[in-house]
Amino acid sequence: MQLPVRSRLLLLLLLLLRASGLRAGERSSSAMEEIATEKEAEESHRQDSVSLLTFILLLTLTILTIWLFKHRRVRFLHETGLAMIYGLIVGVILRYGSPSSSGHDKPFSCSQEDRPFTTLLVNVSGKFFEYTLKGEISPGKIHNVEQNDMLRKVTFDPEVFFNILLPPIIFHAGYSLKKRHFFRNLGSILAYAFLGTAVSCFIIGNLMYGVVKLMKLVGQLSDKFYYTDCLLFGAVISATDPVTVLAIFNELHADVDLYALLFGESVLNDAVAIVLSSSIVAYQPTGENTHAFDATAFFKSVGVFLGIFSGSFMMGAVTGVVTALVTKFTKLHCFPLLETALFFLMSWSTFLLAEACGFTGVVAVLFCGIAQAHYTYNNLSVESRSRSKQLFEVLHFLAENFIFSYMGLALFTFQKHIFSPIFIIGAFIAIFLGRAAHIYPLSFFLNLGRRHKINWNFQHMMMFSGLRGAMAFALAIRDTATYSHQMMFSTTLLIVFFTVWIIGGGTTPMLSWLNIRVGDHAPSVEEINESRWLYFRVGVDPDQDPPPSNDSFQVLQGDGPDSERGNRTKQESAWLFRLWYSFDHNYLKPILTHSGPPLTTTLPSCCGLLARCLTTPQVYDNQEQLREEDSDFILNDGDLTLTYGDTTITANGSSGSCTAPTSLDGRKTKSSSEEALEHDLGMGDNEVTSRGTRLVFPLEDNA
Amino acid sequence: MQLPVRSRLLLLLLLLLRASGLRAGERSSSAMEEIATEKEAEESHRQDSVSLLTFILLLTLTILTIWLFKHRRVRFLHETGLAMIYGLIVGVILRYGSPSSSGHDKPFSCSQEDRPFTTLLVNVSGKFFEYTLKGEISPGKIHNVEQNDMLRKVTFDPEVFFNILLPPIIFHAGYSLKKRHFFRNLGSILAYAFLGTAVSCFIIGNLMYGVVKLMKLVGQLSDKFYYTDCLLFGAVISATDPVTVLAIFNELHADVDLYALLFGESVLNDAVAIVLSSSIVAYQPTGENTHAFDATAFFKSVGVFLGIFSGSFMMGAVTGVVTALVTKFTKLHCFPLLETALFFLMSWSTFLLAEACGFTGVVAVLFCGIAQAHYTYNNLSVESRSRSKQLFEVLHFLAENFIFSYMGLALFTFQKHIFSPIFIIGAFIAIFLGRAAHIYPLSFFLNLGRRHKINWNFQHMMMFSGLRGAMAFALAIRDTATYSHQMMFSTTLLIVFFTVWIIGGGTTPMLSWLNIRVGDHAPSVEEINESRWLYFRVGVDPDQDPPPSNDSFQVLQGDGPDSERGNRTKQESAWLFRLWYSFDHNYLKPILTHSGPPLTTTLPSCCGLLARCLTTPQVYDNQEQLREEDSDFILNDGDLTLTYGDTTITANGSSGSCTAPTSLDGRKTKSSSEEALEHDLGMGDNEVTSRGTRLVFPLEDNA
Repeated sequence: MQLPVRSRLLLLLLLLLRASGLRAGERSSSAMEEIATEKEAEESHRQDSVSLLTFILLLTLTILTIWLFKHRRVRFLHETGLAMIYGLIVGVILRYGSPSSSGHDKPFSCSQEDRPFTTLLVNVSGKFFEYTLKGEISPGKIHNVEQNDMLRKVTFDPEVFFNILLPPIIFHAGYSLKKRHFFRNLGSILAYAFLGTAVSCFIIGNLMYGVVKLMKLVGQLSDKFYYTDCLLFGAVISATDPVTVLAIFNELHADVDLYALLFGESVLNDAVAIVLSSSIVAYQPTGENTHAFDATAFFKSVGVFLGIFSGSFMMGAVTGVVTALVTKFTKLHCFPLLETALFFLMSWSTFLLAEACGFTGVVAVLFCGIAQAHYTYNNLSVESRSRSKQLFEVLHFLAENFIFSYMGLALFTFQKHIFSPIFIIGAFIAIFLGRAAHIYPLSFFLNLGRRHKINWNFQHMMMFSGLRGAMAFALAIRDTATYSHQMMFSTTLLIVFFTVWIIGGGTTPMLSWLNIRVGDHAPSVEEINESRWLYFRVGVDPDQDPPPSNDSFQVLQGDGPDSERGNRTKQESAWLFRLWYSFDHNYLKPILTHSGPPLTTTLPSCCGLLARCLTTPQVYDNQEQLREEDSDFILNDGDLTLTYGDTTITANGSSGSCTAPTSLDGRKTKSSSEEALEHDLGMGDNEVTSRGTRLVFPLEDNA
Repeated sequence: MQLPVRSRLLLLLLLLLRASGLRAGERSSSAMEEIATEKEAEESHRQDSVSLLTFILLLTLTILTIWLFKHRRVRFLHETGLAMIYGLIVGVILRYGSPSSSGHDKPFSCSQEDRPFTTLLVNVSGKFFEYTLKGEISPGKIHNVEQNDMLRKVTFDPEVFFNILLPPIIFHAGYSLKKRHFFRNLGSILAYAFLGTAVSCFIIGNLMYGVVKLMKLVGQLSDKFYYTDCLLFGAVISATDPVTVLAIFNELHADVDLYALLFGESVLNDAVAIVLSSSIVAYQPTGENTHAFDATAFFKSVGVFLGIFSGSFMMGAVTGVVTALVTKFTKLHCFPLLETALFFLMSWSTFLLAEACGFTGVVAVLFCGIAQAHYTYNNLSVESRSRSKQLFEVLHFLAENFIFSYMGLALFTFQKHIFSPIFIIGAFIAIFLGRAAHIYPLSFFLNLGRRHKINWNFQHMMMFSGLRGAMAFALAIRDTATYSHQMMFSTTLLIVFFTVWIIGGGTTPMLSWLNIRVGDHAPSVEEINESRWLYFRVGVDPDQDPPPSNDSFQVLQGDGPDSERGNRTKQESAWLFRLWYSFDHNYLKPILTHSGPPLTTTLPSCCGLLARCLTTPQVYDNQEQLREEDSDFILNDGDLTLTYGDTTITANGSSGSCTAPTSLDGRKTKSSSEEALEHDLGMGDNEVTSRGTRLVFPLEDNA
């Protein structure tokens, strides 16, 4: 049924040559042409299937090996590093194992004096065929166009990453940000993410420019390499992705503040890096000298950055709000399938909406995730909550491992690599220095304002944890049309490999070397997650009950410094944050969810009608459970819940009345939102000890 | 930041013209070219986002309206019909609302005397650009190439349907086939699916050939239209998709045998139609006259059909078996995320593997789904079961509604429609006659062998339920290169619209007109599904406990004819089926799952080592629960479970000891597999009445 490629092509060629000499009435050769065309389509389809199958095989191998690693508690190689290795192996096989089909794509030269059109119509013996523009080929690489179809087929359009693969990853990150610790360290996280990334970008850009100049001097530079390209490289490579490190932190229950700082920083700096790279691309100085510092263009770029970032932020927040309102005012919770599907679609649409409006989808989706977690989650039915979390979890898992597999594959399938030793070495030095310039000075300044200092060990660990990953890769592969971009992409790939394997593998030794405390008593997040079904069997939703802060647990452990934490969090909660929290607690949450206090009480009487419209009956029922609503956190890291399989113990008190009599330091006179705030930030430590604790470990054996 | 398209293009044009006159050392114009290229890329990306966003909007609207319809119990318009309407509306907006950008895609004519290459290299002022072959354009439609980008962007490559959208739909159908009723009516279902589809294809093909001849006579035919094209149309349009009807059957609890017949037939005939269309395409008679009946070519086509079908079947079954073994012998069930991801990947890989080997992915995925439901499901952890079911459910839901939205959209965005009134009217008549020739004669012959006849009302309902849907559409859109195929596609689209809206909408009236019994006492599948979380809350897995057959329930209802059913099912269970069942029960299930009887007892002693390897410790623990394991059905339709929220009532007895003393008709002497078989097919009716029943309706209000 299937002829070899060359025979088919010869046949086709013969047929067409014959056809050009036959009259239009002759059917047979045309019929055979059509059949031959269909065969070509089949062959192409088959290759597409093989290409996708390759990736599925990679992912399957990765999953089985991950299981094996978990089974044997292997920690030196994270699943992402593993996916890359498998990608590499398959890349080698594809590159050197599959036959190249020469002659199939012999380039046809047709000169145009105009511009490259998006579509060409080509006249072949009276038939018209439509061609679409794929991209530019540099002259030195023309012969590569003839390379085998297999490599082509496994090479994806970079937009696949930004439209399909990155959104689930980023959304999941936002959806699972441990809000309490995130907000506690909010100032530091924002500083690291914004200032730090900008500093890192600038430093790396300038260092690389020096390297490029050096390369030009020694004659290693074959083509143009601008300053803006260097800056772009700086922005791209500043996007950290310490997924390996965070996974290990998780397993070993390393310090939660460190976890929060790293996780928050990595999530936000992805957003910053992507907007920064767009701004740099938008930097178009007037005049012919692109080196000159053009203040107008510079400020325009800054404006672009701020505009895109805030626009994306608003878009993400708005979608979260809209989803919250929709789920609040419809009875979709009766139909978990519909609710989950809607939730999924609206979250995904944020990304596309932002992209369509010229903003950045990643940032939008990140803030959408945070907003959904904060508002919409409360409106979902119990089943929808678990469904949506599981759905995004599996999408995140598959997408992330897919990207890392692709990275490994791309080393061999990408046909335009440019490896320049000087550039590569320079890049490694630059990112090292850039990270140092990012972490240490900022930490110094932050420590001036923080009561609980970021100590040297933490700083070293953060310095060390500058792994690059999916975002850097995606940004680098987005545009590989020019020489400079191709070199940057190749270098980025090597940097990702090195940091994930070597630095990621060295995390556990580094943790011990730096004496960063790890806890072994608490069940890991995994254990909590894996045994989550226990909750469903006994009717308890772990996300609904207020988990005590890890501080509480450590108070129980008699760990000295933590008693300070109570004070620190109170003072660190900046006035602005407390203001926001009141606003959120009194107005936003009642509008967007079923939580109290009811708007009818908090809004002035002139807005009475509006308040009545926006207040659902559930609010009055929920008054009793104010505490839970206020302290709803999506449990997703080492924070304990003491309610393992036991419905009666709630560590922070499940009824509103609990808090008032036992609050510390005569705070009874504070407003309820203040109480809620302090409560959420873990002030109620004493309650835990007074009620007693009981840990019931999960029933399943996770070994 | 964004110039209008025309200005950008003019700029680009000017720049290129300038560039052609400049020396290579000049940077500025080249730099601006690159920037302009990036802007083009951005614009293209933005349009992609808008295109995807359009579909998300469509799906969101559909979901909200579905909820509204469910809320108000609207039954005349199913969600698929709704999705099509929204697709139509958006199609109109896109077609007539968005501006066409003329001049952007002005065709460039470049004559070739050879053949259309897959890749072209075009030389533009010294730069090389790569173009890929998109397809053939008929001369009359050249001007359409200029049409606006928006329509292009929302037009998908047909392979998207076969590679991405259809697999979840078909897999879910296989995964949720209600096995008991499926197997009870297996012979009839196979007859309808295979013979019936072949008959329908042949009849429709011939009738359409007559229509085509007529069109040629009256001069309405502009181009070639072969007999094989007509047969292909017959195959394509024979793929029924009565999703609307089945949904209504579900809601109204119509007769389960009718449901099984329709569902089973539609699922299998999709598979048959797709293989049939491939076989027809493969029919290549030697010689120049494609009308002549070439016996060799005919038998070759038959061989292709059998080969593809059996190959796909084997592939699907093998993947199911492999997944079962993997999940049995690893402890993946400790990690639901990994297990679910693996299950998903392996199921998807079936499709791709089959496609890559030249078989048909749809058939493979269907049988994979059935195999997974039968074997792998038992090895999954409780959480994985729900996760995987929910995952496939949401994917199925989104994919199906997406396809139907796309259908509506395609009426306006597809640029090569050919509407020929004679052909369309002829097609409607042909499908009506084809369906009649499909149903009535076959039912007559089947009734000769069945004890429980398919009565006239059922036959009329089946005749009526010949809706076309996603499969017919996908097959038709797969190849629209030629005049005949374009006409077929346009007609298929209209047929789908008509059948889904008009016939689907008329289902409920038709059911009452035909006096087909509907039940209102039993909770609907939806109610069962929606309240499934109840089971998790009280620790009961409804799929684990053996649900009594619907017969039992009807025995309780005192419904006369059903007492006959017990006898019928026993006698209808053909010898072949009983043989298969023993084999499955004694060997396959013990090998692939943890169910008993242990292989160490059933295999001869020479295979002792093998038996010990393949037998896991759980088997011995499971001996007590043989009954549940044997009668595990994936509960997914109106079959009752009497274990709503009540863990103590199991209608058929949860311990092995229960069945033996109370089995009917002195069957104690039968072998355990025979007992199991009869038990599964619902012989144990008396047990139900003796234990009493108690229905606890779901707690949630589904209104």
